[in-house]
Amino acid sequence: MTLNRHWVLRKRPKGMVAEGDLELESTPLRRLAEGEVLIRNLYLSLDPTNRTWMNDAEGYLPPVQIGDTMRGLTLGVVEESRSSRFEPGDLVSPQVGGWADYTIADAGLARPVPRFPDLPLTANLSVLGMTGLTAYFGVTDIAKPLAGETMVVSAAAGAVGSVAGQIGKIRGARVIGIAGGPEKCRWLTDELGFDAAIDYKAEDVGDALDRLAPAGVDVDFENVGGEIMNAVFNRMTIFGRMAVCGLISAYNATRMPPPLPNFGRIITHRLTVQGFLILDYAGRWREAYEEMGPWVRDGRIKWKVDVVDGLENAVDGLNRLFTGAHDGKLLVKVSPEP
Amino acid sequence: MTLNRHWVLRKRPKGMVAEGDLELESTPLRRLAEGEVLIRNLYLSLDPTNRTWMNDAEGYLPPVQIGDTMRGLTLGVVEESRSSRFEPGDLVSPQVGGWADYTIADAGLARPVPRFPDLPLTANLSVLGMTGLTAYFGVTDIAKPLAGETMVVSAAAGAVGSVAGQIGKIRGARVIGIAGGPEKCRWLTDELGFDAAIDYKAEDVGDALDRLAPAGVDVDFENVGGEIMNAVFNRMTIFGRMAVCGLISAYNATRMPPPLPNFGRIITHRLTVQGFLILDYAGRWREAYEEMGPWVRDGRIKWKVDVVDGLENAVDGLNRLFTGAHDGKLLVKVSPEP
Repeated sequence: MTLNRHWVLRKRPKGMVAEGDLELESTPLRRLAEGEVLIRNLYLSLDPTNRTWMNDAEGYLPPVQIGDTMRGLTLGVVEESRSSRFEPGDLVSPQVGGWADYTIADAGLARPVPRFPDLPLTANLSVLGMTGLTAYFGVTDIAKPLAGETMVVSAAAGAVGSVAGQIGKIRGARVIGIAGGPEKCRWLTDELGFDAAIDYKAEDVGDALDRLAPAGVDVDFENVGGEIMNAVFNRMTIFGRMAVCGLISAYNATRMPPPLPNFGRIITHRLTVQGFLILDYAGRWREAYEEMGPWVRDGRIKWKVDVVDGLENAVDGLNRLFTGAHDGKLLVKVSPEP
Repeated sequence: MTLNRHWVLRKRPKGMVAEGDLELESTPLRRLAEGEVLIRNLYLSLDPTNRTWMNDAEGYLPPVQIGDTMRGLTLGVVEESRSSRFEPGDLVSPQVGGWADYTIADAGLARPVPRFPDLPLTANLSVLGMTGLTAYFGVTDIAKPLAGETMVVSAAAGAVGSVAGQIGKIRGARVIGIAGGPEKCRWLTDELGFDAAIDYKAEDVGDALDRLAPAGVDVDFENVGGEIMNAVFNRMTIFGRMAVCGLISAYNATRMPPPLPNFGRIITHRLTVQGFLILDYAGRWREAYEEMGPWVRDGRIKWKVDVVDGLENAVDGLNRLFTGAHDGKLLVKVSPEP
């Protein structure tokens, strides 16, 4: 009888996740029903949105219930199958993954995971996974920077922002990233080819934008919200577009500054503010693979993963997302690759 | 020598326009230069946006300067011409009109005004003028309601909102208007064919929307801002669109409630919030005339004008826009029609 370790939500966190909000428990695995697969998880993706699922609030997915296994995006290998769709050894992402060693999933709703030639498996949970594809569709379908336009990306050193900025560059935009700390900023300009970077910990973002984008910001790829978003909004040009991808500054916050305080600008400058979710592009991932795959393999898009070893360290890993103390797409290595 | 009465901005108003903020002065008319026309103004349009031009704030047009004649949209008749574009007797709107008996204008930038058969001249400053066309392009180009969708219009009994709602109905949407007072609400439902109306003075707008649109709001045609806009925003459905046409509640306000306080909804519900200005459609008025003209003549679109007699009453008229004490598109009759 195999024991399955899994993180259970015990209390709704206030602010950062604290000791006792989630607990690692062990439960014997049940037997598979017809149509199910047993997945041994290899990697668990840690994403800012995970934190929003812990709140008892209306969202794009229902909140995780108290007593339930914490929800997360996973990539695993089929160990046992009672479905003709999958065989043992296949790579798979279940529709609803969890912070667990094993997941039993409905095979009909699970997604086979492609093996990209010349790329490590972690690419599937980063540059060619949810975060990279969020960047891809957010830039190409929502923000739509034109060649020569000035595009700002917040949380620009993050898993989504870093890819969004590089796609903006490929599309011909002048790209300014906002990130925390000189090391991240150097990475953006020296390695990823951003035109400029603003260290929000060292400089007022509005002042920096006035200096770096004196004619204003045509396109904002917004990942942060709060004061940083407001500083960009107040400098958007006529017909500017703000693609709202994430609001990470709000996810642990108990109080936020009001959004878009100078709201009349939306009329005077004919701005568009549009939110989006990668979920809506589930049917279009192949498009992204086809266009981005070569960019990734050719090194035109650079990426990093920061792998936390061991399921037991998942909570610490998640909290690092919000302090910025991570270096690349955060993943938890749950068990060894086959 | 003809004396020209004109309203001069003497002080920037705080809140509503007060005694002494504008002053009616008389100045002799100068002689025309080559390429100019002398226009005797027939009608002056009073619009909420006029109030924003009095503030010393960045806008879509420069603020009216202290000591200058107040800017306004006018329709007049050419009395004297030093241009081959216009002859005496022609109807014309100058590029920049003023609150005055006469305007001397650059003929090259003035717009000939069409005479619509079977319609009074005031149609050119109302249902087929700036306000009607704002409604037309806002609905057809920005809000884009689909048949069967639920569309909310705020300031729905206003010159823009009443036409926007009727176009929404023609497009097959279910239209709910928000207006102040039972009389305006009855006009919307009983005469204009709105599906429902909310009297914001008598009922909480959020509660009313929960009752009238339990499945949420697909499209908002926003003219008001503030608490009313926020109540609608918080009930927008997935992929909802908010076309931001005006924020009348802000124009005289010294303090406003923060906009879109539940801003995360823009992501969870994939909302689009888009501002627009009729100025950007200057090249496309003919489209609107062609589609709307028959609707207006056939009575499918109903409209009212509220004509204030005499230029000397323009300030009182403008203030009535903000108290809602007017009934139809507000115009000032400056001089008799020829």
